[in-house]
Amino acid sequence: MIGRLNHVAIAVPDLEAATATYRDTLGATVSEPVPQPAHGVTVVFVTLPNTKIELLHPMGEKSPIQGFLDKNPAGGIHHVCYEVEDILAARDRLKEQGLRVLGDGEPRLGAHDKPVLFLHPKDLYGTLVELEQA
Amino acid sequence: MIGRLNHVAIAVPDLEAATATYRDTLGATVSEPVPQPAHGVTVVFVTLPNTKIELLHPMGEKSPIQGFLDKNPAGGIHHVCYEVEDILAARDRLKEQGLRVLGDGEPRLGAHDKPVLFLHPKDLYGTLVELEQA
Repeated sequence: MIGRLNHVAIAVPDLEAATATYRDTLGATVSEPVPQPAHGVTVVFVTLPNTKIELLHPMGEKSPIQGFLDKNPAGGIHHVCYEVEDILAARDRLKEQGLRVLGDGEPRLGAHDKPVLFLHPKDLYGTLVELEQA
Repeated sequence: MIGRLNHVAIAVPDLEAATATYRDTLGATVSEPVPQPAHGVTVVFVTLPNTKIELLHPMGEKSPIQGFLDKNPAGGIHHVCYEVEDILAARDRLKEQGLRVLGDGEPRLGAHDKPVLFLHPKDLYGTLVELEQA
């Protein structure tokens, strides 16, 4: 069911410094910072030949990654995102198998304007997983 | 400099259960468990269309992931691995820029029988990064 790894999201306390490290030190192609107020984050996209890294920094007072950075002040890998062909079918199958979908269980538009859901990390061995409709 | 994302490594406390979840619930293609005594881990490879997930479980008394599981008993994302064309050139460039290479700084053969190095997570915003010669 899961398809491509769409991205790995890394929360960072200093977006400018992290962007410079990925661009200048690791030699990767990075985007400008993209504010995403609806998601409470500013994102820098790091383009790799086969997938993306997304550097996330909190935006606003209710950012969903603030708690993670409070626990991990240096930053860290926040989640992985797998693509699925049909997000509603994927959700229903996973719920039947006992996995918990975060929030109200309805997909919402994610950072790439496609429907996304998040699965509870306790059901996936400590890994927060985002599903995105391909 | 960094190329493809070779894999995302996820440490899990119960390899059999995690493998079943990735295979049966998430519907991914998984390998048999591969013992890697030289690395202190048993690995299950989860094949995605564009990259791999590696489920890691401690093997032996000095496993490099035991400390991580002690701190994260449910498991969690342990590291990401980027491919580089020339691991010695990459190492020298990164050291010049102040990044710390773990261990004695010499590449050793990794899980795929190619030279690998690990970079200190404190220099990369809390992310443990493995470099593997492509």
